[in-house]
Amino acid sequence: MESEEFGSSVRLFASMVKSDQTNKIYNPKHPPHVERPKAKLTEQAEEVDVSAGNYGALPLIQSVDYTHKRYYSLSELSLSVAEPVWIRARVHNTRFKGKLGFIILRDTVHTFQCTLFLSDQVSRNLLKFASDITKESIIDVYGTLKATSQPVQSCSINNMELETTKVFVVSKSQASLPFQLDDAGQPMTLEQAENERDEDQAEEGGRARVSQKLRLNNRVIDLRLPTNQAIYRVSSGVCQYFREFLIQNGFVEIHTPKLIPGTSEGGTEVFKVDYFGRQACLAQSPQLYKQMAVMGDLERVFEIGPVFRAENSNTHRHLCEFVGLDLEMAIKEHYFEVLEMIHGMFIHIFKGIETHFATELQTIYKQFPFIQPFQYTEKPVWLTFHEAVALLNEAGNPQSVHADFNTATEKQLGAIVKERYHTDFYVVHRYPQEARPFYTMLCADDPEFTNSYDIFMRGEEIISGAQRIHDPAMLRQRAIFKGIDVSTIKDYLDSFKFGAHPHGGCGVGLERVVMLFVGLKNIRWTSMFPRDPKRISP
Amino acid sequence: MESEEFGSSVRLFASMVKSDQTNKIYNPKHPPHVERPKAKLTEQAEEVDVSAGNYGALPLIQSVDYTHKRYYSLSELSLSVAEPVWIRARVHNTRFKGKLGFIILRDTVHTFQCTLFLSDQVSRNLLKFASDITKESIIDVYGTLKATSQPVQSCSINNMELETTKVFVVSKSQASLPFQLDDAGQPMTLEQAENERDEDQAEEGGRARVSQKLRLNNRVIDLRLPTNQAIYRVSSGVCQYFREFLIQNGFVEIHTPKLIPGTSEGGTEVFKVDYFGRQACLAQSPQLYKQMAVMGDLERVFEIGPVFRAENSNTHRHLCEFVGLDLEMAIKEHYFEVLEMIHGMFIHIFKGIETHFATELQTIYKQFPFIQPFQYTEKPVWLTFHEAVALLNEAGNPQSVHADFNTATEKQLGAIVKERYHTDFYVVHRYPQEARPFYTMLCADDPEFTNSYDIFMRGEEIISGAQRIHDPAMLRQRAIFKGIDVSTIKDYLDSFKFGAHPHGGCGVGLERVVMLFVGLKNIRWTSMFPRDPKRISP
Repeated sequence: MESEEFGSSVRLFASMVKSDQTNKIYNPKHPPHVERPKAKLTEQAEEVDVSAGNYGALPLIQSVDYTHKRYYSLSELSLSVAEPVWIRARVHNTRFKGKLGFIILRDTVHTFQCTLFLSDQVSRNLLKFASDITKESIIDVYGTLKATSQPVQSCSINNMELETTKVFVVSKSQASLPFQLDDAGQPMTLEQAENERDEDQAEEGGRARVSQKLRLNNRVIDLRLPTNQAIYRVSSGVCQYFREFLIQNGFVEIHTPKLIPGTSEGGTEVFKVDYFGRQACLAQSPQLYKQMAVMGDLERVFEIGPVFRAENSNTHRHLCEFVGLDLEMAIKEHYFEVLEMIHGMFIHIFKGIETHFATELQTIYKQFPFIQPFQYTEKPVWLTFHEAVALLNEAGNPQSVHADFNTATEKQLGAIVKERYHTDFYVVHRYPQEARPFYTMLCADDPEFTNSYDIFMRGEEIISGAQRIHDPAMLRQRAIFKGIDVSTIKDYLDSFKFGAHPHGGCGVGLERVVMLFVGLKNIRWTSMFPRDPKRISP
Repeated sequence: MESEEFGSSVRLFASMVKSDQTNKIYNPKHPPHVERPKAKLTEQAEEVDVSAGNYGALPLIQSVDYTHKRYYSLSELSLSVAEPVWIRARVHNTRFKGKLGFIILRDTVHTFQCTLFLSDQVSRNLLKFASDITKESIIDVYGTLKATSQPVQSCSINNMELETTKVFVVSKSQASLPFQLDDAGQPMTLEQAENERDEDQAEEGGRARVSQKLRLNNRVIDLRLPTNQAIYRVSSGVCQYFREFLIQNGFVEIHTPKLIPGTSEGGTEVFKVDYFGRQACLAQSPQLYKQMAVMGDLERVFEIGPVFRAENSNTHRHLCEFVGLDLEMAIKEHYFEVLEMIHGMFIHIFKGIETHFATELQTIYKQFPFIQPFQYTEKPVWLTFHEAVALLNEAGNPQSVHADFNTATEKQLGAIVKERYHTDFYVVHRYPQEARPFYTMLCADDPEFTNSYDIFMRGEEIISGAQRIHDPAMLRQRAIFKGIDVSTIKDYLDSFKFGAHPHGGCGVGLERVVMLFVGLKNIRWTSMFPRDPKRISP
């Protein structure tokens, strides 16, 4: 792309620090001796280049100058800005023909058009340089904002454009991309989205233009998709509102160890680690440690951190590493105190996202036009397990009160609740003891059932929680009853012997919450670098 | 402790659900048949017990009643509350003699006195019951707040007390404790605190009353120490202000994988994990992934999460698992943009803690009266590596500009800077390339030095950071030069080929920041469940 038009000193420096594609080791002990070029860009090819010094490849940005020059991000652009502006953004696309050219810039979820036309301010050389810029390169442009007479079809910012007089390349992309972002960003049908549930989706019919596997293998480029820009901003917002509500309610943030001596939940598979010659495990949840923090009088605690599950599950909703949003709190009387806290917290999250991430939600819906926005009620919808079973049975779905729901039953229940209560967000509580871990408090009136709850979004479980057993003798007995080797959890069991707060809590999967709030079909859309039994890279 | 005075039905129920210390499995399929007792507590031992029904062991709190009864926490108590109040808190101590008794309650960093005296509202039976309550038990008390004529010596809330007429035990502690909190909470001398640097401290001279090992082995009780209550609240606050500042400045929270295929930093030891038959590692930092997120156009990102170091270092400042506060951001021109962001962020954190955690800081200083509060200046103090070396040399400390500081030199520099600039918080930048990882951008004017920085608190490093290399060819060359197997970081290297943002960032160790801001001597005081080569439990 670098042709003879551009300042030779710029090219000399750039080739010194950048373009050496050989394997020669860049050894700072023997740097080539070159003068650093001045900012002035000269131009020789035309008789008089009116754009001389107004285009070219910038030297590698290496913290030489610090001018505090103001750059506008695309979201800051406004027609009320009269003076010319500098913008640094990524090249989404270019289109040049004769005396006219367009560069579409992209920045997060926004796209925006720069126009260049041959004039007394824009030379043929500048047009040639700009037309050679590869997609995905990062560039600086300078010009004046102008209203457009009709909306710019291909851009999200469509009421204005930049009449551009300067173009510099900050970082050039290689020309060949693993896939085109425009292809990956095509609106999907419901069928295509459903097929995204399987990474190894079949080639034929109802397939997205760019396979999920190809996208995930090139995740850095995939993340640039406006849909992904939106998803990870929403994900950040969910964490923010989760914490905001809890801190307002007196919770303390804790960080529990991920390297632990035993298993944290018993039963399911754990990842094993060699810890200085001893065997350790990766925590499957902060469960035991957050309870210990409550017994240590932190009373109301939360944690956001990774949890690890070595389950060989290849489904649309399982990951081997995901982000757990955990909370645990002392209660005075009843696990309803925890459920009320969780309800208030989720309403805070939902409203926060709807209010402050509306552009992001719209960006996602643009690619998935079939998505129904998430529906919820301020008044909680809490069903006992018995009531949920009755609803299922009434609708012709056989379900016992002594067995947990399976995924299909949960989906059916979700449809029934949605029709009856007009909500995608609801609670089922008092699960049978068979379905819950050893540390779950039994119901006083019927120890076949427990003071536990699951919370659902769009018919899929996102939260499990319960009042926990705080009596050490009862806890030990329940652990033995459930087949746990109590010697591996001695420290945990002991922590209830010195005065124990009645308490309860829950664990939430961040990726599931985002997937289901937004309405996506595969959890790999909401995990930045997903880990499943088949995937550990990038 | 349970004597014949107390209601028999209460005892019957309590023994059923609680006190069964045998190994009999508590099987909910065959629960013993008992009636749940009514709340009424009867009393037979005296002719007429004026306190009948006003004391006793409560049934196990099992979510039976939900009365929404208001409980006051100790921090909410005020003499303007005229009506009687309920308080639930932990028994810190009791003292009974004849017709008079005191119960000292504890709740987070606060202690508070309840008085009981024989009267027409308080019976001898109630006094007897209360005097038998073990330390660390959780109890409900009811009474009226009264001003005290003189300050209560032994309590942090010393201008009032509770004239108590009802006492119920919520959860009884076993009588023997691994150590006494009053002993562990004794004010320390500087010598004692310095000796805390070593977990296996010698028995003789200058030793804390309760050894660090004993405290850490019984961490749940140790956490109840007001000093620890304060430390983990301050720690939570540091995270809160870290995020608050970054979110205000357009950063997005990310979560990068901890299970990764290669090592993240090269060189230092990593923990190995079996990942479905393949070998994986635990990430030593989110370094490569947060840079990839920036290349994925998230542009400004932060993460709070665990980082893992399999270093066999047994020092006062190393942990095998700690909490990393990481940020990474695109820059326009200069790494000073990152340093300015970091400076603003730390001023925000320091002020936030000083303002909103003043009680916590005072609580900590009470145990460590020798601590000088942290000193900092709003105006940044940034020294180049050359300037720092010159200061050291002037003061008679030999130090080359081509080798990294060691811990002792850093301490010396800290003392010099403190004297000259009156700050415990400062930056050294432009480190020699020998001292920095492969991905650090070299200085344009002298590639023996780098666009990097360390940040210090009280003469100890808390942050390492730099502008990173965003040119793929240069990055590859530097990786080879530093002896990295580039095949293990292919995805990372490739992510710079498709247009790369100039960028920089840093990683902060949370436990170190809290330790050094507060002025503690051992990082094990600021890690809730510390992990070092010798310790992986509790």
